Amino acid sequence: MITKAAIYHRSHSSYSYAYDKETLHLRIRSAKGEVDNVTLRIGDPFDWSKGGGGGNLNAGNADGWIGAENMVMEKECETELFDYWFCEARPQFYRARYAFILESEDNELLLAGEKQIIAIDNRDNDPLLSQLSNFYGFPYINPADVFNAPSWVKDTTWYQIFPERFANGNPAISPKNALPWGSKDPTVNSFFGGDIQGVIDHLDYIQDLGITGIYFTPITEGESNHKYDTTDYLKVDPAFGDEETVKTLITEAHKRGIKVMFDAVFNHIGASSIQWQDVLKNGKNSKYVDWFYIEQFPLINESKRDSHSKEMLNYRAFAFAKNMPKLNTENPEVMEYLLEAGRYWVRNFDIDAWRLDVANEVDQRFWRRFRDELKAIKPELYILGEVWHDSMNWLGGDQFDAVMNYPLTDAILGFFATDTLNAEQFKSAVNEINVSYPINVSEASFLLLDSHDTSRILDQCGANKDKAKLAYLFQFTQTGSPCIYYGGEIGLEGGEDPLNRKCMIWDESKHDLNMKQHIKKIITLRKTYSALRAHKIEWLVTDNTQKSVIYQKQNNADNIFIAINNNDKPSIMKLPVALSGRTVIDIYNEKTCQLAETLTLPAFGFALYNLP
Amino acid sequence: MITKAAIYHRSHSSYSYAYDKETLHLRIRSAKGEVDNVTLRIGDPFDWSKGGGGGNLNAGNADGWIGAENMVMEKECETELFDYWFCEARPQFYRARYAFILESEDNELLLAGEKQIIAIDNRDNDPLLSQLSNFYGFPYINPADVFNAPSWVKDTTWYQIFPERFANGNPAISPKNALPWGSKDPTVNSFFGGDIQGVIDHLDYIQDLGITGIYFTPITEGESNHKYDTTDYLKVDPAFGDEETVKTLITEAHKRGIKVMFDAVFNHIGASSIQWQDVLKNGKNSKYVDWFYIEQFPLINESKRDSHSKEMLNYRAFAFAKNMPKLNTENPEVMEYLLEAGRYWVRNFDIDAWRLDVANEVDQRFWRRFRDELKAIKPELYILGEVWHDSMNWLGGDQFDAVMNYPLTDAILGFFATDTLNAEQFKSAVNEINVSYPINVSEASFLLLDSHDTSRILDQCGANKDKAKLAYLFQFTQTGSPCIYYGGEIGLEGGEDPLNRKCMIWDESKHDLNMKQHIKKIITLRKTYSALRAHKIEWLVTDNTQKSVIYQKQNNADNIFIAINNNDKPSIMKLPVALSGRTVIDIYNEKTCQLAETLTLPAFGFALYNLP
Repeated sequence: MITKAAIYHRSHSSYSYAYDKETLHLRIRSAKGEVDNVTLRIGDPFDWSKGGGGGNLNAGNADGWIGAENMVMEKECETELFDYWFCEARPQFYRARYAFILESEDNELLLAGEKQIIAIDNRDNDPLLSQLSNFYGFPYINPADVFNAPSWVKDTTWYQIFPERFANGNPAISPKNALPWGSKDPTVNSFFGGDIQGVIDHLDYIQDLGITGIYFTPITEGESNHKYDTTDYLKVDPAFGDEETVKTLITEAHKRGIKVMFDAVFNHIGASSIQWQDVLKNGKNSKYVDWFYIEQFPLINESKRDSHSKEMLNYRAFAFAKNMPKLNTENPEVMEYLLEAGRYWVRNFDIDAWRLDVANEVDQRFWRRFRDELKAIKPELYILGEVWHDSMNWLGGDQFDAVMNYPLTDAILGFFATDTLNAEQFKSAVNEINVSYPINVSEASFLLLDSHDTSRILDQCGANKDKAKLAYLFQFTQTGSPCIYYGGEIGLEGGEDPLNRKCMIWDESKHDLNMKQHIKKIITLRKTYSALRAHKIEWLVTDNTQKSVIYQKQNNADNIFIAINNNDKPSIMKLPVALSGRTVIDIYNEKTCQLAETLTLPAFGFALYNLP
Repeated sequence: MITKAAIYHRSHSSYSYAYDKETLHLRIRSAKGEVDNVTLRIGDPFDWSKGGGGGNLNAGNADGWIGAENMVMEKECETELFDYWFCEARPQFYRARYAFILESEDNELLLAGEKQIIAIDNRDNDPLLSQLSNFYGFPYINPADVFNAPSWVKDTTWYQIFPERFANGNPAISPKNALPWGSKDPTVNSFFGGDIQGVIDHLDYIQDLGITGIYFTPITEGESNHKYDTTDYLKVDPAFGDEETVKTLITEAHKRGIKVMFDAVFNHIGASSIQWQDVLKNGKNSKYVDWFYIEQFPLINESKRDSHSKEMLNYRAFAFAKNMPKLNTENPEVMEYLLEAGRYWVRNFDIDAWRLDVANEVDQRFWRRFRDELKAIKPELYILGEVWHDSMNWLGGDQFDAVMNYPLTDAILGFFATDTLNAEQFKSAVNEINVSYPINVSEASFLLLDSHDTSRILDQCGANKDKAKLAYLFQFTQTGSPCIYYGGEIGLEGGEDPLNRKCMIWDESKHDLNMKQHIKKIITLRKTYSALRAHKIEWLVTDNTQKSVIYQKQNNADNIFIAINNNDKPSIMKLPVALSGRTVIDIYNEKTCQLAETLTLPAFGFALYNLP
């Protein structure tokens, strides 16, 4: 019996989308293990053997028409509850009506359409197979609506820099209260004098790691050390440098094949900005009063968060941060002000990407406009939104190219760091995330283990470097665009904010060279073997007891098997048929290996085998 | 046992949306009959007793915070496979993290979040109840993103006019080959001389019916009788009138409290347009060559549809209609040309609504721009897209205010006209359609039984006027904006195109006055009793054997029960407790009634009872 209630498909979603200007991707979900075969039945809405759609319900009925096609769907993956089925179609006239035929072992046959899931007698000539009014519709693949992230993104490895803590290249401009570099653990308010020149000085170091993109948290003027309280969107923070320093940074980065991403903080503005100060001074007569969401005057300029009182802020702010009043992005003046900020750094400084802070709290109408304006200047600009949860709403092709894939972060942490997911649950979580987005979205996704907003991966792993190395390995063998948070490569530690923002260590004797070697290696492997960057992941072994997995990444070029033992004991895995007894290339250690029927991995061991 | 695989929710969809600037609507689905209670657990992402989200995973942990709220969800409706649960929430700071607690009879307790559906021990203090990273997110209700159809729409009753066939008011401008009015059945190419003056002449008739909006199929210049092959978007078809006639029409309609909707055919243009003619003449050197999608020259200007040959059109067209080449709405020139057409009729003629032809095949980027530009001129403009299938993709607030609700049409036809749905299936289909959209979307939905694209309702009912009357009754007791296709009110018949476009009959002796009385009555009832226009529908009786239903429409003002017997025999229904033995007002017949324990309705009988 097929559980009808578990079957799911909706057109224009992660289940049904244009992969490119000519290709539709279609997915359907069924309860795990119940369905043996799924067939996609697809045809032109106006050229069907019988019945039609789209304002023309009775088109057809003539000889010589193309009629419907039946395509076999492949089982894309399985999760705890579901099997997902996938098919790629290229409708000749860029439009389609389609439904799904599901078949179980006991020969139950269902037709799943938009209005009903119905039993059919026969997959060849049941009249229901042509009742287009029950079919799903993908009315037209219009190029303007196709999700289209820049192609360079999926081949990029990012490095996230928190400028105040990366390197002090110009002590003359450091804040007066700057502490000696690395002299103590940072507090919420401490300064150490990191700046742009410091980054320029270390671009060779970054390039040597294999990095091809740098994501900078804000470099524009702000009061805090993190600069998320922008006071002037067009001005480099004077403690970081000036326009010339930024131009040099970008020129030198580009010379080294490194893209540059800046951070746009458009949800809110810093309280020290002239705009908010004018409101504080002039109240309801301020010319900026409509830039904000102010409930009433006088302003209660104290945050509940600070006071724990019952008195709330009477203006909207980020979280309850009184120093970050929320901007009204519906106000055309604000819109133009922020759009110009967006354009300014692309037009005048040639940055390659914008990361959008608190992107999920800004209105989407603004983001659509932002995309249109920015892509008009630089079509290959990467637009990355900060959204921590399910983000399909922003990834329809009209807004962002990607979001920060924190759900995948959580899955990786759950298995490798916190032991809250076993191997099967880990597989299920990763697969669920993959099918919750179109494949072209996943291919441009921003993959991270940690950031300035989280504990560092090493701390999450309880300071176990071996576990952190496995987490990085998994990250670098997924599709998308992986990012390393500065210092991760040398074993820099740090718990929650502010401890995750420690000064970078430049004394090489204090670097974890083993970790650094690992990071460089996996960056190189990812560059060398395109299969590691491919979307499809085939799980061959998920061993809950031994905490180990083997998965396969395959494309036309390579066929790579990754075995990981996330266990403090050795693990002995029976190899899948594809590997058992085969001669393979251990691409991590660059040697040929003869495999037996089982594979023994040491505690926290791993292996990458290519079977060309 | 609760079937986990049947549970469904996705944020920013028909399951999770802003109803207005302050209100979230949340729905969750479970397998039918399995779940007894559902609780929504909702709180501020930055103000949670423990754990947080949105870039701030560890906010909180302090006394005095609001924490999470548990809200009881109501069972919104049931369908063949599912129960749907609903809740309305007003988050104080316009943002929310939420999850669902599902409870079954055998005390199984599940927490349904974004990443996992997990068993919990206890609905009060299980630590999972605060793991926000598993919760769904609705990060911010920004007014700009809230779906916002004009408020007048839900109180409007439409009348669709096909101008060539409604009335000939100015024989001097009739096409030369026009046939005498109503002298024969129309063919695909016949003309009868209907025009705008004819409509003006009959505005009193239309007003007398109770109509408050007229939807005109195209009145702009085109070669065909239907004018969907536009040749000039800014010119009134000379056989219909001129600018002055249209101005008079709109002024006179507005005087009578009647809104006017025109039809925008932007997917394609007529082959006789100067643009296409220029392409035919000048080939690849035409200045209009980029207005179209032309694969190669010379053009194969013959449609496969006509010829049944294997040779296809080598340019994109609507369906396979060689006389309707598809416009490239990504081309800024085309975009501006069409936007100006859109603006022109609103700005200069004050029309109240645009119906968008083949709206699902035009790119959505264009429609977003169209909405922004048109609403800037007239914020209360109604934008209605022609989409026949599931349309959530166009109804997110950024594009259309409504689509033509053909799925509901199909459900109504299935029960009342074609007997392909029994009472239970009918209820299930109606409920599924209702929950597949946000409630504010349903409230502005365009409800129709027939149109120029379908057989007339009377023909669909096999010429059974009693059945047609029941279908109209059902249509007029649903939320949305109902429309009557011209002539339906007098019993005009007609099968598929071209027979559905017969000349309107103006000889009153040939009107079905009984049908007309019925239409006028249900229009009046809908106006009088706001409960009939309310979204919520409660099904009290669905009797498959007797083909009869009783459903309830209730709001603060009224409490109306509608009983319908869709059977050629009398039906005896046991009345639900709420009605049994009660004194009610029969609002259709305007009299008080004393009900017994059962209700007997004659063949194709119906009753509307108000129980104030």
